[in-house]
Amino acid sequence: MDTTLKILVVEPDAMRAQDIIDALKDAGWSSVYVVAEISALAKKLTQIDPDIVLIDLAHPDRDTLEHIGHISHAQSRPVAMFVDRSDSDLTQAAISAGLSAYVVDGLQKNRIKPVLETAIARFKMIEQMRLELNAAKQALTDRKTIDRAKGLLMTARGIDEERAYTLLRKTAMDQGRKVIDVAQALVTAADLLG
Amino acid sequence: MDTTLKILVVEPDAMRAQDIIDALKDAGWSSVYVVAEISALAKKLTQIDPDIVLIDLAHPDRDTLEHIGHISHAQSRPVAMFVDRSDSDLTQAAISAGLSAYVVDGLQKNRIKPVLETAIARFKMIEQMRLELNAAKQALTDRKTIDRAKGLLMTARGIDEERAYTLLRKTAMDQGRKVIDVAQALVTAADLLG
Repeated sequence: MDTTLKILVVEPDAMRAQDIIDALKDAGWSSVYVVAEISALAKKLTQIDPDIVLIDLAHPDRDTLEHIGHISHAQSRPVAMFVDRSDSDLTQAAISAGLSAYVVDGLQKNRIKPVLETAIARFKMIEQMRLELNAAKQALTDRKTIDRAKGLLMTARGIDEERAYTLLRKTAMDQGRKVIDVAQALVTAADLLG
Repeated sequence: MDTTLKILVVEPDAMRAQDIIDALKDAGWSSVYVVAEISALAKKLTQIDPDIVLIDLAHPDRDTLEHIGHISHAQSRPVAMFVDRSDSDLTQAAISAGLSAYVVDGLQKNRIKPVLETAIARFKMIEQMRLELNAAKQALTDRKTIDRAKGLLMTARGIDEERAYTLLRKTAMDQGRKVIDVAQALVTAADLLG
């Protein structure tokens, strides 16, 4: 466990806040920041840029869940939420909002550490999938761009596909750039020149 | 909530098993099956093909977690596990094994329903990401196959890229097949013929 992680806690109840801080310190986490109101979350997030966010909200509604997912950048850090009760629609909304943990009626001192550890592991797993997805989409986009650039060269110079690719690659090497960047430049120029 | 879901419970303790069954029935789920031992899981999974699996294991080790992720097909159905204690490495292993919920010290009757609902929502979200990832990878693979087929036609017939693609598309339309299938057939044939 990385004990230097900065943790931002949203907890309206002062006594519960102290319990959470104690539980986090017992678990080895000492960089803990607390705000009492969800309305203070956005500003505090900017100030502190925490590694994890832990939110205790009795009965969030759908809009609040979406709002929190948005402002807490739930896609770029683990956000764990504890609520007193939920239903399947709200649970669905919480997961869709990107929360890494959504725990109903489970905010007991001894459970905070494992919930945060699960949230971190879950976050990493989903981040990994998201990176893979973005890489796959990027590879497809790059290939389309390179194909279009090859097509432009084939038409303009009356050369075949292999020569067009060799020309792209040689230009990239000569200029110390990547093939995709040269291809993108060519496509952009062709679009501009019409 | 879909109350017709078949739920398979792994619970060694008979009294806890009855508590779980009661909690599930209270929540509206009545198709509940129980096995007492993890060793009976694989066979029961085949017999019942449950929609959700709920496993209560006091102290699973890493190997057990991986084994369960594997045999329970955690990528094709939500699997929720309750354990008495964990550490961050085990938690990481549980998430990597594909468990949709991994709950430490939280098997109380009133928490079973929200945990299963979270597991279902989480499972759907990850399945959606996995489908997107597979689609993106497939699109890239298809494009490579079609490009290779076009290249084969361009060389064999001395035609340009556009004509090669038109030929692929016309053949596909004439045969009531997809362009990718015709392209794949051409690439396979070329590989076989050497």
